[in-house]
Formats: sequence, C-alpha cells, structure tokens
Amino acid sequence: MVDRITIADIAKMADTSVATVSKVLNGRPGISGPVRDQILDLAKQVGYRPRGKGIQKRAKLIDLVLRGISNPWASCVLAGAESEAAQAGVGLVISVSHGRDMGNPQWIDRLSRRHSDGLVLVVSRLTDGVDSELARLRIPYVIVDPIGIVPPGVPVVGATNTEGGRTAVDHLVELGHRRIAIITGPKNITCAQQRLDGYQAGLARAGIQPNPDYVHYGDFEVEGGYKAAKALLALPDPPTAIFAGSDLQANGVYRAASEEGLILPQDLSVVGFDDSPLCDWMIPTLTTIRQPLEDMARQATRILLSITNGQGYPGTTNIQLATSLVVRESTCSPRFP
Amino acid sequence: MVDRITIADIAKMADTSVATVSKVLNGRPGISGPVRDQILDLAKQVGYRPRGKGIQKRAKLIDLVLRGISNPWASCVLAGAESEAAQAGVGLVISVSHGRDMGNPQWIDRLSRRHSDGLVLVVSRLTDGVDSELARLRIPYVIVDPIGIVPPGVPVVGATNTEGGRTAVDHLVELGHRRIAIITGPKNITCAQQRLDGYQAGLARAGIQPNPDYVHYGDFEVEGGYKAAKALLALPDPPTAIFAGSDLQANGVYRAASEEGLILPQDLSVVGFDDSPLCDWMIPTLTTIRQPLEDMARQATRILLSITNGQGYPGTTNIQLATSLVVRESTCSPRFP
Repeated sequence: MVDRITIADIAKMADTSVATVSKVLNGRPGISGPVRDQILDLAKQVGYRPRGKGIQKRAKLIDLVLRGISNPWASCVLAGAESEAAQAGVGLVISVSHGRDMGNPQWIDRLSRRHSDGLVLVVSRLTDGVDSELARLRIPYVIVDPIGIVPPGVPVVGATNTEGGRTAVDHLVELGHRRIAIITGPKNITCAQQRLDGYQAGLARAGIQPNPDYVHYGDFEVEGGYKAAKALLALPDPPTAIFAGSDLQANGVYRAASEEGLILPQDLSVVGFDDSPLCDWMIPTLTTIRQPLEDMARQATRILLSITNGQGYPGTTNIQLATSLVVRESTCSPRFP
Repeated sequence: MVDRITIADIAKMADTSVATVSKVLNGRPGISGPVRDQILDLAKQVGYRPRGKGIQKRAKLIDLVLRGISNPWASCVLAGAESEAAQAGVGLVISVSHGRDMGNPQWIDRLSRRHSDGLVLVVSRLTDGVDSELARLRIPYVIVDPIGIVPPGVPVVGATNTEGGRTAVDHLVELGHRRIAIITGPKNITCAQQRLDGYQAGLARAGIQPNPDYVHYGDFEVEGGYKAAKALLALPDPPTAIFAGSDLQANGVYRAASEEGLILPQDLSVVGFDDSPLCDWMIPTLTTIRQPLEDMARQATRILLSITNGQGYPGTTNIQLATSLVVRESTCSPRFP
C-alpha cells in the first residue's frame, strides 16, 4: 500500500509552509491567487484526500445565518439554500443573528459545538472578532451579498447591483421620465451604494442633470420607503418616477402615494429591487429589478459544499449573478414629463 | 453507588411491558391517558434518567419540516421555532416537503442519518407510512396545525380556528353587514373546515340566513382568493363583506375588487386570517384574525425539546392557542347594508 499523501508532503513539493497548504486545502481565507492555485493543482495531481476532519467525519450539516426571517427577501434565500443542501443530502441549520453586525455571536459557539461543516452568511458585516473566530475554529464560510469589506479568499456571491440600478433608470428614461428619484438602502451597505452608482450612471447616459433632492437613503424596509417618498412627493417639483432600493421600500412608496391620492402608475411610476413574492401581491403589481436571490443562495451553498467536501473551490471566489428588469404594472409613461 | 433505574424496573413497578414504558418515556405515540400518566409519574418518583440515546447522546438538533418557505405564513413559523431552539442551544434544521402530503419523504432518511433529536411538522398530513417510519426510527415529533387525523399521543399545537371564524363574522355583523361571504381553505384541511364552522356559528348567532352562494373553498393562496372573489362579486346580490381564510386569499380579494373598480373598505369589507407581515403591506392594511403562528411554533418546539430532553411531556398534548381580531383599515360599515 502506498503511503498516504499528507499536507506536509504537499508543502514540501510547493516549497511553502504546512500552515499555508492547510489553509488552502481547508478552504480557509488568507492565501490568494497563484499560491492557492498551485497548491490546489498539486493536491489534485498527487490525489490528496483529507483525513480526519475531512470527508469521513463530516457532520453533513451546514449553517445559514440570516439577520432576520420575517421578510420576503429572506424567504427566497432560504428556499435556495434549502434546495441545494437537500439535494446534497446535507442538513441546513438556520440561525438568526438579529442585526446586521455579527457581534456577540452565540451562534458561533453553537455551530462549533455541533461540528457544523461550514457556513453561509447572508447580508452581514463580519466583525474582526467573528472573522478570526471562524478561522480559529477552521469553519469555512461563504458570504451572500456582503456588507463592507470581505476578508481575502472568502468566497462571495452577490448580484450586479450597479447594472441593476442603471437598468431601472434606463427603463424609466425609455418611458419618457426625466424627473427620476431614488430611495436606496443605508449608506454603509455595499449593494445600496452600488444601486445608487447605477442610478447616477443611468442619468448620465440619458444626459439628465442629477438633482440632489431626488436622492434618498432608506433602510430597505417599508417604513424607510414610505418616509422618503413622503419627502419626495412634497417637493415643489416632485419626481414622476421613483426607483426604490428594495421591493419592501417600493411598498412604502405605494402607501405614501396612496395617502397623497395619486393613482399608480399614471401619476407615479415605481420600480423596486429584488423580485420577491411581494411584487405580485402589490396592486398594481410591481415592476422591479430581479436579483436571483434563490440562485445566489444556491450558488453560495454549492461553493460551500465543494469546500467542505475537501475539493477546495477551484473557480473565482467572487461571483456576481446578473440582475434583470421584470416589467409589471407599476411603470408607464408620465402624464406630465 | 445505587444501581441505575432502568425502563425494565419501571415496567415491573407499573405492571406493564417494557415496550409500553419505552414508548412513553421516549415521547412516542401509541400509549394514551392514564397508563401514560402513571408511567411518567413513576419515572419522576424514582428519578429515572434515560441513558444512551437520552441526554448524553443528543445531537442537539431538531428538524422543522414545512411544505413551503416562500410565504409570509411560513416566515412566522420559522421565526418562532428558530428563537425557541436557539434559546435552548439546539440547532434547527429546515426541510421543505414540497407538498402537503409527506409521501416519498427523503427528509426522513436524512434526519435519521444525522440522528435528529426530533421533529416539528407543520401543516402536514401524516401518511401511514411516514407515521410508522418515524415510530420505527424512534424519532419523537410534534405537529403544528395538523391536516386530518393525528395519531393518538402525538402532541399537536393549533389555533382556535372555529372561534376565529366566528369572531370575524361578529366583527362584520357589528359593523352592520348582513351579506357576508366566506372563502375558506381546501375542504379536507381541518382548520379550513373549522373556520367555516365558526362562520356558520356567527351567522346563526346574528340570525342571518346562510346563503350557500356565499360559501367558497379556496386553496389558502392568492389565486384561490382572487377566483372566489371574482365569482362572489359577479353574483346578482353580491356580498358587502368577505371573510377570507388566509391573508394571502384576502390579497386575492383585493385584486378582484380593484379590477371591479371597488374602493376598499367602503364598497367591500375584507377580513383575513393569520396576521402575517403581509397585512401591513396591503393597502388598505388588512383587518384579520390573528393566529399566533410564531407562538404556536415556539410552543411546539418547547414541547418537542422537553420530550427530547427525556422529561416526557407532562401536560395536555393537544393545545389550541387563542385567535384574536386585529382591526386595521379594511373593514367599515357597508354603504348599502
């Protein structure tokens, strides 16, 4: 019987440290680019298979950490992760972090005690403490729709938010709108900033002078959309169209418009973002920028499972899935352009 | 050191079989009433603690099986189960059965392989096969909002659906409505039938002659509510109020009413059922019968955890949590009573 190839053997061949090889083969962050690729190639060539903590001892469990469950956005993410995990015969444990920051995280404790194979983190900011704690526990993770900066080497699945924002504006411009407002998400959230970038790019393409009064930051929730829309509709020169940074915010815009006695879409066109089930429940149904949330979660889960399978993850570790325009009933040409 | 008390000891004391004692102490169905109580009392008196599969070997995992995730109803159930499990330091694994029947259940296979401590089943019909398979695998389970007949001894948490239906009608009668229609859920689902019972009782109390044209069965989804409302609004003598069996169905009623050019609530009052987040997203906001879904799931999880802790479950195993009327904007006195 041939001797088992160990991490030390690969380190020797690659002329690097055991720690470096271990990091790469356990799918952990910190080693980037060519070194990582070389080690993965070598491991493949020599037929390296992890032992102990590798295939044999897998708990067949992964964790999905969300900051909340009770919104249509989370439902899509859950559905995607569940279907991918189920297909792989792996259990999906749900934890709610109750807040975007992952500070004081009891869930880390719990998932370490149950030897979770890995983690899909959704819309969350990784504090330094959590990052290093996960590294110490050797728990691989993948981030869906990150907030802020992601540690190098950590796989990330997002959506093309900038293009999405631009597409929303393009659609409204094509309908004849010039007074187009935006209610994006919180300033410090990456995707909110990107959607605003896309909005600005769309205006620039159309040769529309940006109006600072037309830019609002919300909270991605109904209330934020409502308040911003109230302010926008009270302007002396109100917009004829509002691009909301989430379907929930668009719902808040509907409420504000209804209170002002406006008829949608004739008096005000509205575009959302997400394409959650809520779009079809709204009257009129909501034109929106679809981000493939279910597919994003599925893809993130697939990447995680390929890491926990000991295969490492061969491809690009930062993926943006395409957004697309879904036209429903909430947009039309403006009455008074 | 005193000898450990075994199941055999308790069987002897209770003058019954080891199988019977085992069933009771493992929280499994099949043993009812006094025998069960006697065994639990005895076990408590002699300080019985399960060994092996009991406390020491617990996986600290329970499963929640839902028939779907992408609706606001499921979000509430998930939130309740997650918070209760998290508090107990137990992981909550989510499985979707994709359909009300639990036939051909791959999830049983998976949860048995990962040694799940137990199961919370939501709105599901237990086929005979699943029932006996769970019994064979000795996996205790609790049912939330059951469909059809539940095996004896299986804990059940539901809501007071009949009272809820009656409360909806009482509210509408108080506002002056006499022509009150109902769109309930599918005929073969227990809670749908109970909501209809409550509706009939409410009419009887008010001395209103029931009109068979005013009774529709839907599917608890938007589409079912829409279709039934279309039919109701096309009647020569249409109702002035519709009680929908779910918030989603009420959403379908809104759409039908909007297509008919009706203004809510002046032209048509609508009452929903559930009190999901959707109620606040609808315009006008939806008056509904609240069933405490989050709390139902929390209660079911608590019962399951007390069983998997080896404590058995001391109380009544069939609980109905109270429903209540939540008045929002979608009901008012009829224009033409």
